[in-house]
Amino acid sequence: MSNEKYTVGVDFGTLSARALVVRVSDGHEMAAAEHAYEHRVVTDTLPGTDIGLPAQWALQVPADYVAALRHAVPAAVAASGVDPADIVGIGTDFTSCTMVPVRADGTPLCELAEFADRPHAYAKLWRHHSPQRQADHINAVAAQRGETWLPRYGGLISSEWEFAKALEILDEDPEVYRAIDKFVEAADWIVWQLCGTYVRNACSAGYKGILQDGRYPSREFLAAVRPGFEGFVTDKLDHPIGRLGDPAGVLTDQAATWTGLPQGIPVAVGNVDAHVTVAAADALAPGQLVAIMGTSTCHVMNSDVLREVPGMCGVVDGGISDGSWGYEAGQSGVGDIFGWFVDNCVPERYHVEARRRGQTLHEYLSELATGQRVGQHGLIALDWHSGNRSVLVDHELSGVMIGQTLHTTCVDMYRALLEATAFGTRMIVQTFVDSGVPVDEIVVAGGLLKNPLLMQIYADAVGLPLSVVPSTQAPALGAAIHAAAAAGVFTDVEAAAKQMGGRKRNAYRPIPEHVEVYDQLYREYVTAHDWFGRTEDMMHRLRHIAAGQRLGVPA
Amino acid sequence: MSNEKYTVGVDFGTLSARALVVRVSDGHEMAAAEHAYEHRVVTDTLPGTDIGLPAQWALQVPADYVAALRHAVPAAVAASGVDPADIVGIGTDFTSCTMVPVRADGTPLCELAEFADRPHAYAKLWRHHSPQRQADHINAVAAQRGETWLPRYGGLISSEWEFAKALEILDEDPEVYRAIDKFVEAADWIVWQLCGTYVRNACSAGYKGILQDGRYPSREFLAAVRPGFEGFVTDKLDHPIGRLGDPAGVLTDQAATWTGLPQGIPVAVGNVDAHVTVAAADALAPGQLVAIMGTSTCHVMNSDVLREVPGMCGVVDGGISDGSWGYEAGQSGVGDIFGWFVDNCVPERYHVEARRRGQTLHEYLSELATGQRVGQHGLIALDWHSGNRSVLVDHELSGVMIGQTLHTTCVDMYRALLEATAFGTRMIVQTFVDSGVPVDEIVVAGGLLKNPLLMQIYADAVGLPLSVVPSTQAPALGAAIHAAAAAGVFTDVEAAAKQMGGRKRNAYRPIPEHVEVYDQLYREYVTAHDWFGRTEDMMHRLRHIAAGQRLGVPA
Repeated sequence: MSNEKYTVGVDFGTLSARALVVRVSDGHEMAAAEHAYEHRVVTDTLPGTDIGLPAQWALQVPADYVAALRHAVPAAVAASGVDPADIVGIGTDFTSCTMVPVRADGTPLCELAEFADRPHAYAKLWRHHSPQRQADHINAVAAQRGETWLPRYGGLISSEWEFAKALEILDEDPEVYRAIDKFVEAADWIVWQLCGTYVRNACSAGYKGILQDGRYPSREFLAAVRPGFEGFVTDKLDHPIGRLGDPAGVLTDQAATWTGLPQGIPVAVGNVDAHVTVAAADALAPGQLVAIMGTSTCHVMNSDVLREVPGMCGVVDGGISDGSWGYEAGQSGVGDIFGWFVDNCVPERYHVEARRRGQTLHEYLSELATGQRVGQHGLIALDWHSGNRSVLVDHELSGVMIGQTLHTTCVDMYRALLEATAFGTRMIVQTFVDSGVPVDEIVVAGGLLKNPLLMQIYADAVGLPLSVVPSTQAPALGAAIHAAAAAGVFTDVEAAAKQMGGRKRNAYRPIPEHVEVYDQLYREYVTAHDWFGRTEDMMHRLRHIAAGQRLGVPA
Repeated sequence: MSNEKYTVGVDFGTLSARALVVRVSDGHEMAAAEHAYEHRVVTDTLPGTDIGLPAQWALQVPADYVAALRHAVPAAVAASGVDPADIVGIGTDFTSCTMVPVRADGTPLCELAEFADRPHAYAKLWRHHSPQRQADHINAVAAQRGETWLPRYGGLISSEWEFAKALEILDEDPEVYRAIDKFVEAADWIVWQLCGTYVRNACSAGYKGILQDGRYPSREFLAAVRPGFEGFVTDKLDHPIGRLGDPAGVLTDQAATWTGLPQGIPVAVGNVDAHVTVAAADALAPGQLVAIMGTSTCHVMNSDVLREVPGMCGVVDGGISDGSWGYEAGQSGVGDIFGWFVDNCVPERYHVEARRRGQTLHEYLSELATGQRVGQHGLIALDWHSGNRSVLVDHELSGVMIGQTLHTTCVDMYRALLEATAFGTRMIVQTFVDSGVPVDEIVVAGGLLKNPLLMQIYADAVGLPLSVVPSTQAPALGAAIHAAAAAGVFTDVEAAAKQMGGRKRNAYRPIPEHVEVYDQLYREYVTAHDWFGRTEDMMHRLRHIAAGQRLGVPA
């Protein structure tokens, strides 16, 4: 043992888990290790069977999460050179909303022989989108009854969330539904495996579980949604809530054996990847909007005011840290769109030249686009290739490119798409501000940070200084910070974040001449945004025609 | 000499002239030969000087036209094996509006030593677009004065046409302007070289020279346009008009020496490439819309009714054949757009696979797109990458692609662009019909004929049967048909066209299930067309911002 203390953060992503050993005195990242899930995402057939899954299904195998713990944590500790005796706590974060149907003792139904061949007995990953029908129905009934919780979610709950996922099971496999004792967030299930105690975290319960002002949707509402669903909350969902940064329990003997960590150290209450990143950024103050930018972008921000913001994903009391209103918004396609463009829209000569330079196409196109003056390409794009989450909440919208001429290059179009996503963020910021929730600073984390052109465009197009989170393991760092708070090393998450987290402030400042032109271009974006997104229903009609034709049914 | 008679048609294009020897008994094409213009299109510096030209300038050297005659005609005759003594007439067609400033004897000013270094002394090619300022001014004055000829041109005359080109010379080089005895269409100048007589053809005079109901714009109008311009018509333009298909004169000794054709054979009145194609298609009856499809599309059609059609290029009495109202409309970008897409938007793997198959990218993408059901791609595009001629008459519009998702492929987008140009043609057809000018049949000529997918899309998207012109030298064939009429082999152009021209009728018939879906997609096209083209000024603002930024001037 030394004087230094350490915590471990484990970030459970879509395809793998990453463990990080962090020094609590200064947040220094000692070492990390990653372990991929054996079954990754199950979309075709159930493991070990030839039972096929419908479109839009995305399952996971909970045992893979435990296996990742057993491999990644010891590997990270070994790589760090830290004496395990100096590790004082462990924290986790998870994708969300990923749900595990379990028996009363926490055993996933899919691990029981009688349910191993039942798709609904498996964990449903956040991106399991098939319960759209159930979500639509829940929204319609909620709107009709004027449920007061609905505006807290920008007016719509998602097919990804707890109620839609549960109703799908009731509708499609009532036997599995009846066998569920608890319908548990994977974020909490993994904590249960570590400390032997089920604690439902405040973040997931609020954002994905419709827990508002201490209440879930009522029995009457659930009965109106579907006969047989009225007992869902009381029978399967309701459970004591744990505050973020509190301990859920201490590490069991078995989990100590799995991880190589000391038995009895505190295990932090479960958390969600985006939300835990706020601590890694030390951005827990009101008005610090943290954008986690990857294939999609999640925006999370604390505030001291409660407002109903159109199109947000949700506002939750203590949803990011205890004592603040935590807001969440999102852009459903960002890096995905750039990836699509690079894969589908870039001519051969750019591939050849990028190879010659030893650059990726993203790097090469970004370098070329950096030489352009703002707006010289004459283009405006809408960044809806994967639909629009905030502020329109419409996954059937699609992308648009306006202003092409015979002189338009792929560099022009690539840059226009980068800008479109920046305008999408500006639209979200503007909607918060217009709703009375101030935004003072944009803090960026995630994989897209590595593109400096994109970052400067965001600063210029949003018109706010950009801070950046230097950690490339920001969620795992955030989990380790929560672990330090849970272990009592700090009084609370804020104090832990101040010491262990951080961001580079004003890494990108708006350039006034750029801001001036982007102000003009943003007005054009808004015009196109509102016409295609609010006035004109063309995109839905095009989708309807396309869907009919793909099935061979005349539209 | 044999019993068979032949005529020669010479098609003067933008970069070369093509001569074709045709048998008059059945229109059989005996042989063709092409000769490129030595100076092609002069856009940078005047030949033999370092005198630079401004942007958008496009000059030609008239001597190149004569050189092409001297090479291409003898080569075609030699290749045909026809005894020159059996050749009974020669006809020509030309790009338009291409203008040659000449002295009274037909000598181009640029051939005089004192003007050889003056850019305005050269031939100005149709695509010399710099007199936009002059065209705008002429249009504004005409609209203000309520000039009755203006609606005959869809409400706007073009910077390409005679008056704008002449006014530019007056504005920028009054000395050259004063030295001009006649401002002559190249179509008529080349006939003048052949027969020694200047005859102004009815087609050019009507479409490009604003000759309507036997009158040009008045002296008062010209004075209102610009002091010093009032005498333009009387001093430099007005000249006896020749009917299409009539002889302008007979081949001179000198021209017989140049061409190897018999001295004294009739030379047909000059003509324009698109319009002469109508004879090649034997499509001179009212309601037969001939679309010459290449980089752009020109639509020409005879009718027995006179109507004012919004956005048409013009309606001219005898402009296609004597005794009918000849209508013209156009799409400013068609094959150009497909070419731009293939050059700028197709990923490497398609290039590799097309090479492996020995196909062009157009062939490969079209083959892949042929496998799609109508509308399955979910896209709508606007075909304005090169602006919009008919029906919006706005060269500052630009292209749009609506409906992209992360699953959209370059094949989807290529097909959407093919369809967009078909919808552009449907918009023109619909505008004619709505204005009281019936359209019964689409007749296609030109290079894009070779794409059967494109042709089927046009039949399906417009909802009319498509006839096609089998000749790959349709303009030259049309010129040879006019030569046969001028030579008196036939009573008129109609009779000559019936014998020598032709088209494959109903080569593509609308497929009802396709028509049904395209009717829906066309409604979406119209919605986007009208919003971007009529309601919303976004594209002009984007161009304005882009132009300012390219110059480095804040917009």
